[in-house]
This record gives sequence, structure tokens and C-alpha cells, in this order.
Amino acid sequence: MPPLRLGIAGLGTVGASLIKGLNSQAEMLADRCGRELLVTAINARDRGRDRGFDLSPYSWIDDPISLATSDDIDVYVELMGGEDDPAYSSVKAALAAGKHVVTANKALLAKHGVELAEIAESNGVLLNYEAAVAGGIPIIKVMRESLTANCVSRVFGILNGTCNYILTRMEAEGMSFEECLADAQRLGYAEADPTFDIEGNDTAHKLAILTSLAFGTKIAPDAIYLEGITAITTEDIAAAKELGYRIKLLGVATRTDSGVESRVHPAMVPLGSAIAEIGGVTNAVTIEADMVGSLMMSGPGAGGEATASAVAGDICDIAKSRPGYQHGPALGQPAATLLPHTQAAMQAHEGGYFLRLQVVDKPGTMASIATRMAEQDISLESIVQRRARGEDGQAPIILITHECSEQEIRDALTAIKGDGRLVGEAQMIRIEKLS
Amino acid sequence: MPPLRLGIAGLGTVGASLIKGLNSQAEMLADRCGRELLVTAINARDRGRDRGFDLSPYSWIDDPISLATSDDIDVYVELMGGEDDPAYSSVKAALAAGKHVVTANKALLAKHGVELAEIAESNGVLLNYEAAVAGGIPIIKVMRESLTANCVSRVFGILNGTCNYILTRMEAEGMSFEECLADAQRLGYAEADPTFDIEGNDTAHKLAILTSLAFGTKIAPDAIYLEGITAITTEDIAAAKELGYRIKLLGVATRTDSGVESRVHPAMVPLGSAIAEIGGVTNAVTIEADMVGSLMMSGPGAGGEATASAVAGDICDIAKSRPGYQHGPALGQPAATLLPHTQAAMQAHEGGYFLRLQVVDKPGTMASIATRMAEQDISLESIVQRRARGEDGQAPIILITHECSEQEIRDALTAIKGDGRLVGEAQMIRIEKLS
Repeated sequence: MPPLRLGIAGLGTVGASLIKGLNSQAEMLADRCGRELLVTAINARDRGRDRGFDLSPYSWIDDPISLATSDDIDVYVELMGGEDDPAYSSVKAALAAGKHVVTANKALLAKHGVELAEIAESNGVLLNYEAAVAGGIPIIKVMRESLTANCVSRVFGILNGTCNYILTRMEAEGMSFEECLADAQRLGYAEADPTFDIEGNDTAHKLAILTSLAFGTKIAPDAIYLEGITAITTEDIAAAKELGYRIKLLGVATRTDSGVESRVHPAMVPLGSAIAEIGGVTNAVTIEADMVGSLMMSGPGAGGEATASAVAGDICDIAKSRPGYQHGPALGQPAATLLPHTQAAMQAHEGGYFLRLQVVDKPGTMASIATRMAEQDISLESIVQRRARGEDGQAPIILITHECSEQEIRDALTAIKGDGRLVGEAQMIRIEKLS
Repeated sequence: MPPLRLGIAGLGTVGASLIKGLNSQAEMLADRCGRELLVTAINARDRGRDRGFDLSPYSWIDDPISLATSDDIDVYVELMGGEDDPAYSSVKAALAAGKHVVTANKALLAKHGVELAEIAESNGVLLNYEAAVAGGIPIIKVMRESLTANCVSRVFGILNGTCNYILTRMEAEGMSFEECLADAQRLGYAEADPTFDIEGNDTAHKLAILTSLAFGTKIAPDAIYLEGITAITTEDIAAAKELGYRIKLLGVATRTDSGVESRVHPAMVPLGSAIAEIGGVTNAVTIEADMVGSLMMSGPGAGGEATASAVAGDICDIAKSRPGYQHGPALGQPAATLLPHTQAAMQAHEGGYFLRLQVVDKPGTMASIATRMAEQDISLESIVQRRARGEDGQAPIILITHECSEQEIRDALTAIKGDGRLVGEAQMIRIEKLS
């Protein structure tokens, strides 16, 4: 077999780790793939930057589209990122030119995945994107290939290392959200503009891709219910712990009778559960399905080398395939057969809730709160009002409800607020039921 | 594409779950695979047994070899089990006849895997065996495909549900090994003859396969150092917990300078670590490698449906492939390029040790033990001698050592025994260092 020729666009930490890995393991890779893997052409925004390795063996092609369609490559490896151009146009051009594509670009997949999958199918080439979700964890391959015979009921996980790092440190050191974010930025775990991570958009992109694979629906990132972690306080984390829970930013997609309930929000998971033990920048994904039951994978969700591991695995899959071969479609089934995404209303969500209410502590307060909950048929699992009221006459009340609907809890909170005993906004955090 | 025709040998719980799954999801599978999956022929030991579904649509072929080589099948699905015939001959015959093979048979793979992989390669057919290791966890695919570009340093895990169930119940209920085993047998989690599970052989078979995939070496189940769980007592479990550990039966394979250190034995893992939280019949595997770092997968290690999920995934991979295609080799690289397995000596193992010594409690006992440890340059992390000596003048002493070699700890124990203060045998349990 002739070498598999790779054109790589984007030479940040992932691109650099990829090239180093391919070079240092060249012989092993040739053995395992039955052919040599050869980087022939590259491209990046800044040609002059020192990347710690010699760029001279590779031809530099300034225009990503020229690189993507070059006669000198078989596979276009897109590591530039960004949902639009140049990533979008160059990937499209590569597929149309009959090149296989490997990308780590979740935003691109979330926005244009269905269209790109169709172009890949009609050109008989592969579109691989393992690194787009959960970094080094091979969740795409497992869902797309290993679980082909399964009917998935829920997929959920910790999909953003920045948020998990912040929440882990807030608990471990009693630090505020703002302090932890600043530290994460200092250590390179958070971007200078962290909005996309901490508001949950990044998790939503990844969840949108997993949702499509899980339920055979079109990718619909904008349909996802979204709440970030910026409102989580050390008080929430401490109260959660006291009641046997830990707060994680989860992405969850569940099959329901009225569509897919997909949501990203801080959630309480029981201490001692496997997912509660996922700390720091580590990611984890759990899939629940009819045949396999519950399957969990955890590992590095980001980082140059771990992400490059996933990109390289995708490249090796292409290298091992032989002419005439077409593997399964990019989204697990032909893009034309994907169902529209029907989003279940968040109001219909059923679950337990954690509430932290700051109240004016005068006679009848607890009675009025309890009455408002009862009016919505919400029963309570725990009530904590341990600390004495402060000098301001205020006291926090923590409630954990049994399962009820989002509509019911929201109506109860509106009524409680109307009674005039709340100070500020109520904190409401959903409890994720684990099987 | 014409339907993919399956011949299934073995209709126990896995075979029955597989046929039910293929039937109930026929349309979804055809969509995802781009062709119909069709069971055409079957075989089992007992034709008359009621398996809860209608066998009449399938032609019954009495002889497994005739089934395996039948013109009416494209894929031979071997679910009979057993390392020798009829599994061995029929799988060989199928591969030689140009049929793809899917098997759940770990014993067959452990004993004949390299030969079978060679036959598959030279006939251009696939040999898939996802279900042979860790049931529903897609560890074979992840190691063989996702991590192709990685250089693995260690793979370890809980690979036997029976043992993990017994150890979990011993801790949870303070029951003895014998009581838990009896219960596991009653509940169907352990065989009538449980030797193969509780002595670690089953774990060793699975570890042998993972070791080959991890290090590119020939499968060598007999080289593995083996200790089962029969000597673990409730005292060990309680003492471990007190010192912050939990006992698990692990299979571990580590790359060392003097070869592969592969071993199956009860091991202490820190409480709160992800692997310590894997309870009951669940399995878990962790892979440590240069690019991906540490990756963990957990899920059902056995059971008809979970195992059938893995078998079905293997079948779907074949269904999605197209004529002319040959996927990567069965063992991750051409069988002819696999290196001989060089087993590192167990005496060279380095790690911490848990020791439980029953001693005659008289002056100087602790001093003599401490001296014997010091003679081997072994330093101690913890010493516990909490309970008063009994009427028999005996007392248990628990020691946790810092890292030392297996040779050193064994020499120290021999010397301690020679001093005549030990009652019975010393209990020695290795502490597995997690990264």
C-alpha cells in the first residue's frame, strides 16, 4: 500500500502534538496500519512561530482550501477550529474533492455536521471527528460503532474540563467561583474570554453531537436548554455536600415520549457515584441503552496530546481501510435518514430539585413555603435550616424535593416569591437521577 | 447491498439475546448498516430446549463445522465457548472458508488467538472478539482502533464480575468468602464449579488478550502471575478499609525494562479512586498510554444482553464494511509482526504491600518484625496493632510498606517466619499504585 498522505491545517497544541506523535511512532504506526502515514502539507495562521519542531519537511500551503484539495494529500486534517470559515469551506471542499476528513472541531460539527455528513456520504469518503467531543475519550467511535445495535435511552456527562476544574477547586478549597476562574485562566485551563465554557455553550455543542448519535436525530445545538455555572456559590457546594451530593455541570440528553430532552446545567449527583468522583479537567460520559445497560468512559477531555491521540486514531482508521471500502456513515446512519430533532419542553422535565432560599426569618415563613410546595403536590425529601439567622434577620433554607415537574417547582417558586419572604433570587439546582 | 447472512453456533443466554436484539431492531440496524442483517443458520447442543423464541425461521445445521463453512452464511458467530473443539475447529474452518468470524470466546482467543489472527489475515476476513473481554465494555475496539497511535505503559482492570461481586458483598455485609460465594452461586453470578473465576484464570485469559493488544506481543496466558481471591478474609477487608484501601481482584499488565509484568491478584486500591467505586458485577478497565494519558471504561462485564451488544457491534462493523475492504488486523498489527511475550520476573515487581500477621504477642515481637523489614531496606507507611491480644496470647499486626521489591518483601517474610513469632501464614496483598 502507498503511504497515506496527510494535509494538516492548524498547528496549535493539538496539531503540534499530532505531528510529533506521528513522527516518533512512525514505525509502529506503519506496522499497525499496514502503510506509512506521511504528513505532506501544512498550514497555519502564523508561519513564523516557533512550534518546537522543524516545519521544513512539509510543504506550506497558504490557503486552507488549496491545502484541502491538494493533489498531494489523501486526508485533510482540520485543526483550526471555529464553526465558520476557513474551517467550514475547507472541509466542504476537501470532501467534495474526494478527500477523507478528520477534524477536532465541535463547533463546526454542531452547526454544519448534517450537511458535511451528506457530502462525505455522496463522495464515498470518511468524515471522522473523534476529538470533537470529550478529547481523548473515544466516545464517538463507541456510540457510532460499538453500540450500533443499541437503542439509547440517555446519554450524559461532564463534557467541559474548565467547568469541572472550577467546581472541583471550589469544593476542595472553599474558593469562590471568581477566584477559581481566575486561577484556571492563570493555569491555562480557561480562555481569556471564558464565556463559552462557563455558560455551557461548549458542553452544548458536544451534547448536540452525542444526541444525534444517540437518537438518530439531526444535530440541533440551539434546541438545548442551557444554564452555566456562574451562579453556583460555595454555599451551594457546601450544602450539597452536607446532603450527600456534589455539583457538576452536566450535559444530558434523554429520550422521552414527547421528544428529546436535552439540557446543560449544573446538577447534583450523589457522592460516591462514579460520576461524582470525576475531578479536575477530566471528562466522563455515560450511555444508557437497552442492550448494554450502563457504560461509562472517563479520561482527559482536552489537552494537546490527548486530543491528538483521538485525531491520530481517526487517521489510523482511514489508513487501515482499503480502496473500495466505505465505513459506516459519519453520523451513524445515512444523513438523509436522520429524524428532525424534537425538543421536549423543559417544563415537562421530571426530577428532584435542590433549593436554597434566603428568607426573612419571621414566624410563619417555613409554613408558607411548605404550603406553596404542597399546593403544587411537591413533597420534600430534606429541609435544612441549621444556621441561626444573622443580624439582618435573614436565614438560608435548603430544601431537597422528591421528584416533581419543572413546571411545578417553578410555579411553587413564583408563589413563594409572591409571598414576600424571599431575599434575592432562589437558587434551584436539578438533581440528576442515576440508574 | 445484499443482506449480511449470519450463522450462529451456541444459543445460550448470549445467543438468544443476540437473535432477539437483531429481530427487534431489524429496521434500525438495516438503516445504520446500510444492509439487512439476516440470521440464516443456527446450531446448539440441544435442539429441543425452549429458548423463548421461534427457531423455525433458521435452518438448523447439526455440525458446527458445516455451519461455519455453509454457503448460506457470510459471518460465523461462535458463541459456544471453550478453548478447544468444537469452537476451535469451526472458527478455523470458517476463516479458511473466507467467512468473517465473530466470537465471544476468551479461552479460545487466549489459547489460539495468534494462529486464528494469522488465518484471518491470510484469508482477508475479519476476526472480531469484542465480547471476549469485559462483556459490554468496548475495550477491544478502543485498544485496537482508537488508541492505535498510543504507546501503552499499563493496562489494568476488574475483569471478573463474580470476584468483584463477592468482594463487594464481603465488605458491605461483613460476610465470609464462602458465604458470599454460595450466595453468588444461588443468584447465578457464579458457576457451580467456580474455580475458574475465583482462582483468577478467567481474569488471566482476558488480561492475556489485552496485554497482546497493549504491547504488540504474542498472547501468553500461562506466563501471567496468578493469585485468586480465596484467601481474602473479612479481616483483610476491614483492615484495608481502616487504612484507606479497598481490595479488588485486578488484572494488571505493565511495560517494564525487562519485559511485560502481567499479573492477576487481589490488590489494594485507594478508597475514593474511580476503580475502588466499581462495585458488584461491574467491570472496569484503565489504559495508561503516552498520548491519551489515562482512560477508564466501566460497564457490565457479563450478562446475555450486554455481551450480545458487543457481539452485535462486531457484526455491524462487518455489515458496514464493503467488498474489497480489509480492516486492521485482529490483534492490532499483523500477527507475524507480534513480538514474543517476555514475562518480567514477579520478584522484580515494585510496589507497596499490605501485610497482616498473626503473632504471639510477647515482648520483642514488634522489634523483631521491624528489624527484619529494616534488613531488607523496607520502610513502613503504617503499623496497626489496635486490638488487645486474645486469650490465646495472639494478636494481629497490620503493616503497610512503602515501595519495595517483591523479592525484598518475600525475604523479609521468610526471616520473620524463621523467628518463630508468626502464627499460621502471613497475608500479603499488593497495593496497586494509581496515577
